[in-house]
Amino acid sequence: MLDKTISEQLMKRCIGLAHDATARGDYALGALVYKDGHVIAESSSDLANGVDPSAHPEMTVIRKVAEMLKNRYIPNGVLVSTLEPCPMCVAAAIWAKMDGIVFGASQTDAGNWSAQNPGSKFSWRQINLRCADVAAAGHPKLWVKGNILRDECCRLFDIEKQKI
Amino acid sequence: MLDKTISEQLMKRCIGLAHDATARGDYALGALVYKDGHVIAESSSDLANGVDPSAHPEMTVIRKVAEMLKNRYIPNGVLVSTLEPCPMCVAAAIWAKMDGIVFGASQTDAGNWSAQNPGSKFSWRQINLRCADVAAAGHPKLWVKGNILRDECCRLFDIEKQKI
Repeated sequence: MLDKTISEQLMKRCIGLAHDATARGDYALGALVYKDGHVIAESSSDLANGVDPSAHPEMTVIRKVAEMLKNRYIPNGVLVSTLEPCPMCVAAAIWAKMDGIVFGASQTDAGNWSAQNPGSKFSWRQINLRCADVAAAGHPKLWVKGNILRDECCRLFDIEKQKI
Repeated sequence: MLDKTISEQLMKRCIGLAHDATARGDYALGALVYKDGHVIAESSSDLANGVDPSAHPEMTVIRKVAEMLKNRYIPNGVLVSTLEPCPMCVAAAIWAKMDGIVFGASQTDAGNWSAQNPGSKFSWRQINLRCADVAAAGHPKLWVKGNILRDECCRLFDIEKQKI
């Protein structure tokens, strides 16, 4: 598992990516893959602007790294995301035989924000299956660490609200 | 929900796609999307031959249809697959706001086959979360119908064994 200092450094970088997505009018979400001491690739959300229902930043960055490595497996890879990855993205990390997952805000945070902000530009729709539960159901067993810079990541939900 | 006759016709087509994948040395898996009375697109597995950990035929065909429709939502779309879709593919169908899922062999069938055939070319690795449970956790609530031509779909696991 990554230590707190490195996890927070990586999350700050993801928060920057989320701001990039917002600048393009997309969901404020950012993700990266960290492997063997380096950030291998980054991605911010391209969901709202594109036509691919699977274009979550976590999925996009996993595919990008696999393409770079010319290998569908990413051993020692850690997926870092501003928001708790959905079952689609956790499963992709399992299929890629990654090592672990770090996230900031939780699915519950996103759901609570949506409930408190009806009619917002983005729905922040969630599938009610927690990242750790999906990880526990797969092989290899990826470790999961949440709540990294959670407050800063939760504030990303508000960005679009301010822009509307 | 689709009736049995149509479901079986569509599954026969998926079984043909699975044979196509086998001819390319890939997992014997096939999937299609049926919408408004028509098969919109088909896909067979490109997982083992490619470098994309998400290239399950269900995921590939969902992306293909969204690209064709220029829309990340596929209303009234039904995903049909020879094998029970994994959490990644079920979640993609939920994000695409599809209508339902039809499958042939189950995750349990695949797991049992693997246990009985150690050392086979393909591991048929599974994530132990059932399609119906993932669907039930999402919005919209996709209907799920399994065991369509199950015996024929289970026989697909044996194809690679015969070729080795």
